[in-house]
Amino acid sequence: MSKDSVQIGLLGLGTVGTGVLKVLTQNSSDIEQKVGKKIEVKKILVRDINKPRRVEVDPSLLTTEVQDILEDEDIDIVVEVMGGIEPAKDYVLEALHRGKNVVTANKDLLAEYGKELFEASAEHSSDLFFEASVAGGIPIIRPLKECLAGNRIEEVMGIINGTTNYILTKMTTEGSDFEEVLKQAQELGYAEADPTADVKGYDAARKIAILASIAFGTRVTFRDVYVEGITEISREDIEYARELGYVIKLLGIAREKDGVVEVRVHPALIPVCHPLAAVNDVFNAVFVRGDAVGEAMFYGRGAGELPTASAVVGDIIEVARDLNLGVTGRIACTCFTQKRIKPIGEVETKFYLRLKVKDQPGVLAGIASVFGNMDVSLASVIQKRREEDWAEIVLITHQVQEKNLRDALTIIRNLSTVDSVGNVIRVEGSED
Amino acid sequence: MSKDSVQIGLLGLGTVGTGVLKVLTQNSSDIEQKVGKKIEVKKILVRDINKPRRVEVDPSLLTTEVQDILEDEDIDIVVEVMGGIEPAKDYVLEALHRGKNVVTANKDLLAEYGKELFEASAEHSSDLFFEASVAGGIPIIRPLKECLAGNRIEEVMGIINGTTNYILTKMTTEGSDFEEVLKQAQELGYAEADPTADVKGYDAARKIAILASIAFGTRVTFRDVYVEGITEISREDIEYARELGYVIKLLGIAREKDGVVEVRVHPALIPVCHPLAAVNDVFNAVFVRGDAVGEAMFYGRGAGELPTASAVVGDIIEVARDLNLGVTGRIACTCFTQKRIKPIGEVETKFYLRLKVKDQPGVLAGIASVFGNMDVSLASVIQKRREEDWAEIVLITHQVQEKNLRDALTIIRNLSTVDSVGNVIRVEGSED
Repeated sequence: MSKDSVQIGLLGLGTVGTGVLKVLTQNSSDIEQKVGKKIEVKKILVRDINKPRRVEVDPSLLTTEVQDILEDEDIDIVVEVMGGIEPAKDYVLEALHRGKNVVTANKDLLAEYGKELFEASAEHSSDLFFEASVAGGIPIIRPLKECLAGNRIEEVMGIINGTTNYILTKMTTEGSDFEEVLKQAQELGYAEADPTADVKGYDAARKIAILASIAFGTRVTFRDVYVEGITEISREDIEYARELGYVIKLLGIAREKDGVVEVRVHPALIPVCHPLAAVNDVFNAVFVRGDAVGEAMFYGRGAGELPTASAVVGDIIEVARDLNLGVTGRIACTCFTQKRIKPIGEVETKFYLRLKVKDQPGVLAGIASVFGNMDVSLASVIQKRREEDWAEIVLITHQVQEKNLRDALTIIRNLSTVDSVGNVIRVEGSED
Repeated sequence: MSKDSVQIGLLGLGTVGTGVLKVLTQNSSDIEQKVGKKIEVKKILVRDINKPRRVEVDPSLLTTEVQDILEDEDIDIVVEVMGGIEPAKDYVLEALHRGKNVVTANKDLLAEYGKELFEASAEHSSDLFFEASVAGGIPIIRPLKECLAGNRIEEVMGIINGTTNYILTKMTTEGSDFEEVLKQAQELGYAEADPTADVKGYDAARKIAILASIAFGTRVTFRDVYVEGITEISREDIEYARELGYVIKLLGIAREKDGVVEVRVHPALIPVCHPLAAVNDVFNAVFVRGDAVGEAMFYGRGAGELPTASAVVGDIIEVARDLNLGVTGRIACTCFTQKRIKPIGEVETKFYLRLKVKDQPGVLAGIASVFGNMDVSLASVIQKRREEDWAEIVLITHQVQEKNLRDALTIIRNLSTVDSVGNVIRVEGSED
């Protein structure tokens, strides 16, 4: 590879692709110094050649035929920024099988077909980089694979979906309901017309699957992740949490202990003093705990044209450096063993829960005794609103096994003194 | 380099050296998987072989003769964790001249002699890594050189000295005076018996010099950094700052605009809502602004045995990967050009300042007119304590050139209505 320049084929010219083109253009001379060669975009796959673009682009670079890129022997790096599983998967696999290096921002693809992709890249000692697939512009994949490689990582916990963080932040600061803020977010372009993947937690689940795989050296796919979204969070929950010294965030959580991995996405109460509690609006942050580094956190913009392009271009520069030295494939897949994934029932956390109960003596004692029989120990019980004969109580448990809590709630729901069990939300990030 | 293992010579077995040995031992099998080879410590340079150690170490590894390491052909990587300029500088230079790779945690050395070291490493295509030299365990050097390499970095701003951050945090939460908290910090081991390098800002200055060099691709040394420490900060300043919506932090700040670099360390007021404002106690954080990534922040433990060892071992693993492929020297010095360093007088910031003035009509008008004549425009003026005929006023300026502010203060100090000019502290991190 002793060409004068590194040649790129770009698959897609949407938000991220446009950003990549802008960054490569505006910083071309700095990048050339760092790499020692020019980086040139040779072809761009688009659906419609005549569509107006938000970036200046030579029309002769555009093509609607993916083979113009995959079959071009001069193209060293295929940059996939189309998103979605198909046809991106076929294109990326074909590129790898043809010995090309791949940079992708595609979390769906990585979280579901990482194994196939890494096998194809290993076969040809190609680079397969995907920093942009998690937390946009925030460096997190490479820090985990390189800077923190000396650590046994114990925990990765992150706010890794900007849409839901925006919604929860607004619900917190404005005291509004979920539906109301979702509508605002859609109007502002912070939420999609179909917000399912974000608000149900699927997007965050794909990202935590990728982070868990790297952190623990084991394959974790989207299907391994226990997922709950934020659609049931009410402004009352947020208000009660605040009174108790917590904020509610949608967290991706991955932990390893004794060779067993737990990995989940759900809303959680975290103490206001936790570093993640101050991560607001569309910002993302990933908190990492390692046996040597202790606690570290990486914060920044988790989405958007230029932040995501920052990560993609960083990856392109790394591939170019490897190409210069003929050492692509330098850091390959790090999933060395297959560790057991703990079912959610076995996971231990604290819980916040709301119950509507009869406002009469002895009711709490009955509920407490059910919890006690199931090994669920209560850290605090606070009585909130009273309405006629009913009272709402808010409980926080100590660390309990989820199965035990669920069994206890099944019994409690059937008590004649209990009208209903309201929201049950896990509590994370507090000591003891 | 097709040996079965990568052999290390460790220079120093103090706090960081002990941590490195612990991490390499406790995570040896994981590290071997990542590197594809065992990493073995072959020799350790110490001053006293018989001194009791806080880590289990084979006595036959210890030596008091540096040549046992430098002349050992089997040693691939020299890990310098002695600290200080001499003799570390001679040892590191000799190691590089002998073609060995070097991992160092030595900020003093890098900030003063980076050029010599990089020239020596370039001559032999050796790796010279120093992630641990800034912000302990927090990945920041490699993220800047790799993940964010596509960006034009505009600003690096950090809390990069744990001792002073501990002191300022305690002064803030407990309302205590500097001297009082310093004494506590010394008793707890958070401050040295001679705290000069920390409280005068020299330690932070070395770190910001290193960060600025990497961020802007130009050589910035310790001597280029304008430095003020925290010894003059009073509890009144902290209290007034709080009332105005700010906290006081010791910041390392580096910015580039139009090819000119400013780089300084001094206490500053930052808004309570700024991500750095919540970084407390001995924690460090580095805030980065790039033209693509926007705002990003890296947070964690900036010192200590294991966090610093985390960074050193991460570097060792990278060198080992490069050794495997015969590509040491893969990412060399990135100081491509020499940019002008702006003198402090030309720097533009906002200022907080306290004046003790005669409590009578027209005094403020006189002061405001001096400022106005010097192009210093005031954002807010608040009257604080009154004592007999005197009043204390607190001013916040708009963005002004430092020279103009200083000239104005020279005149104001001589006004008959002004008793004294109290603390003058820069204000950073606020918009407009």
